Amino acid sequence: MISDPIAVTMGEPAGIGAEICLKAWMRREELSLPAFVLLDDPKRLARLAQTLEWPIEIAEIDSPKDAMSVFSDQLPVLPRPLPGGITPGSPDPANAQTVIAAVEEGVDLIRRGEAAALVTNPIHKRVLYDAGFRHPGHTEFLAELAGEEARPVMMLACPGLRVVPVTVHLALRDAIAALNQVEIESIGRIVSRALTKDFGIKKPQLAVAAVNPHAGEDGTMGREEINIIAPAIDTLKREGVLVLGPAPADTLFHERARSTYDAAICMYHDQALIPLKTIDFHAGINITLGLPFVRTSPDHGTALEIAGTGVADERSFAAAVREAGAIAERRAASRSSERHLDS
Amino acid sequence: MISDPIAVTMGEPAGIGAEICLKAWMRREELSLPAFVLLDDPKRLARLAQTLEWPIEIAEIDSPKDAMSVFSDQLPVLPRPLPGGITPGSPDPANAQTVIAAVEEGVDLIRRGEAAALVTNPIHKRVLYDAGFRHPGHTEFLAELAGEEARPVMMLACPGLRVVPVTVHLALRDAIAALNQVEIESIGRIVSRALTKDFGIKKPQLAVAAVNPHAGEDGTMGREEINIIAPAIDTLKREGVLVLGPAPADTLFHERARSTYDAAICMYHDQALIPLKTIDFHAGINITLGLPFVRTSPDHGTALEIAGTGVADERSFAAAVREAGAIAERRAASRSSERHLDS
Repeated sequence: MISDPIAVTMGEPAGIGAEICLKAWMRREELSLPAFVLLDDPKRLARLAQTLEWPIEIAEIDSPKDAMSVFSDQLPVLPRPLPGGITPGSPDPANAQTVIAAVEEGVDLIRRGEAAALVTNPIHKRVLYDAGFRHPGHTEFLAELAGEEARPVMMLACPGLRVVPVTVHLALRDAIAALNQVEIESIGRIVSRALTKDFGIKKPQLAVAAVNPHAGEDGTMGREEINIIAPAIDTLKREGVLVLGPAPADTLFHERARSTYDAAICMYHDQALIPLKTIDFHAGINITLGLPFVRTSPDHGTALEIAGTGVADERSFAAAVREAGAIAERRAASRSSERHLDS
Repeated sequence: MISDPIAVTMGEPAGIGAEICLKAWMRREELSLPAFVLLDDPKRLARLAQTLEWPIEIAEIDSPKDAMSVFSDQLPVLPRPLPGGITPGSPDPANAQTVIAAVEEGVDLIRRGEAAALVTNPIHKRVLYDAGFRHPGHTEFLAELAGEEARPVMMLACPGLRVVPVTVHLALRDAIAALNQVEIESIGRIVSRALTKDFGIKKPQLAVAAVNPHAGEDGTMGREEINIIAPAIDTLKREGVLVLGPAPADTLFHERARSTYDAAICMYHDQALIPLKTIDFHAGINITLGLPFVRTSPDHGTALEIAGTGVADERSFAAAVREAGAIAERRAASRSSERHLDS
C-alpha cells in the first residue's frame, strides 16, 4: 500500500468534479480506493453533500499525511477556499487562479513527498484562458511544472485496452501531416518503459496502428506506413522493443486482437478514442506517462450541463484514483528494490 | 418467406468461400437461414466436404427454383465447373473468368426473377485484375451490371450498429480532401430511404460523424464540419430526413449512443470500420444500398492463409444470407402492397 494519499485537484468548481469525488468516496470500500485528499473548498463540498442528501463528513486537514487515518470515516480536504461564486454549470472567472493553484500545489505535495500521486479533475479551459492560463491543457501545464525531465505522453486506458495517440488535438488533416518517425519512436520508447515500470509488464508488447485503410495496402492507399510508421517500428525493434505493425486500425481493437498487445500506439485522436469509448464509455481514464510524478485523470470533461444534480458517473474518477495508486505503488516498490540493490 | 432462393457466388475458389457456405448450410436450421443456391463447381464442393469429413450432400440443380425444395436436405448448386486448379491458398488465374461470370449470372438470375437476392463470396482482386477485371471491387462491378439506375452505397452492419462510410478505399489524407457536401447529402438520402424500404424502419434517424476530433470544436480543429458536413446535414433536415451531427466520432459508438440512431454516416473507412469490428468482429456484413437488386456479402476477405482447413468462421456469411433474405422479403412485401394500392 502507498503511505501517502493521492492528491486530487478540484478542477472547474462549476463542473462535476466535486460530486464525482464525493460519490467515489462513498463507494471507497466497495471500489477498494486508496486514500485520497481533495484540494478544494470544504464549505462548498459540505453544502453540495447536504443538497444531494449524501451522508458525507468532511475532514479539513492541514497535512496530507492525516488523510491516511481519516479517509475511512471522513473525506479529507486540504482547504482551498474559492473566492468566486459556485453555481453548478456557471464557471466564475474569479475562481480561476485557485483552480490553477490547486494543480501547482498538487505537484508540490508530490515533490515534497507528502502525496503519492496526482489525480486532476476536469478544467474548463476557456475560463482559465481568460485568467491568463497559457497551456493547451492539463498535460502541457503539468509538463511545464515537471521541468526539463518531462516528456509527457497521454495514455488512455480502460479494462482490456490501453491506447496512446501520437497526435491529439489537431484537425485530422494536420494530424496526418504532423506524423513523423522520430516522434513515433520516442513515444514507443516511453510507452514500452512505462508498461514495465508503471504497469508491471515485464516484456511489454506494443502495436502500432496504420493511418490509412488496410495499412495503405503496400502504398496504394497512402505512403505514411512506408515512409514514416514502418521505419519507426524498425528502429524500435532494433532497440529491443517488442512491437507489431503498422496494423490496419479496423482489425486492431476487437477482443482477440486486443489480447495480442499491451498498448496500441495510434496515429490520431479518434483512432485511439473511438475503440476506447466504444468498449468502455464510463471507466476510461487518462494517464500521463513520461512525467517524474504519477498523474491520472478521469477521461471526461466538466459536464457543466449536469453539474450539481448528482447524476454524474463517478466510475472514471474512481478508476483514475485506483490506477494512480497502483502506479505509485509499483514505482515505490521499484525504487525500494533499487535502493536495496545499491546498498 | 421469399419464394426464390438467394444466389451465392463462389468468390475466389482458393479462398474460404466454399467452406463458409458448407458450414453455414450445416447450421441452416439453427441459424434460420433462408434457402440459398451456390454458383460453384459441385465436384470441388463435394471433395472439400469429404476432406473435411462434413456430412453434406450436394444437389446439382438446373433451375434455381429447385433449391427451395432441396435446401432442407441437400446443398443446392448451379454447376459452374472451374477450368483451373483448386488448391486452397493458391489462386489460379485460369479460374478468373468463371469467378467473374458467377457474379454476372447471379445478377441475371435476380433480373429474371429466379433468385431473390445476391450474396457474394470474397474475391481475390489481384488475380481478377490479371484476367482483365477493371473494377476496384465487387460493389463497382455490380453497379455497372445494374446499369444507370444504380447509385451504390456501402453499408456495414452488425447487431446494434449500421455504418456507412462516405469515402472508402482512399489514403486518409485523400479521403479528407474528397469530402463534399453534395456527396454526403446524396448518401444521406439513399441511406434514409433504404432504412425504411429495406430495414422496415418507419422514421429512420441518421447520425453523421464529424471528421475532426471533438467535431472540430467550432472550427478551431479543422473546418470540414463547418464548411461541408453541417451544411449537408442542414440540407437533409430541410428535406425531412431525421439526422443528428456533426457528432464527435469518439462518443458516437458506445452502447447508449448507438441506441440514438439507426445508421451512422462516417467520413472515412476506419471511422466506420473500427467501431463495427471492435463491437462484432465475426458477424459484420456488407450491404450494398442503392442497387435495383438486393446484395450483401460477408465483411471479410478470402483468408487464403486458412483456406481448406475448415476453421474459417461462417457467421458473417450466414448473417449476410439471413439479411439478404430479410431485405428481399421487405422489398417484395412493399412491391405487393404497392400493386395492391394501384389496383
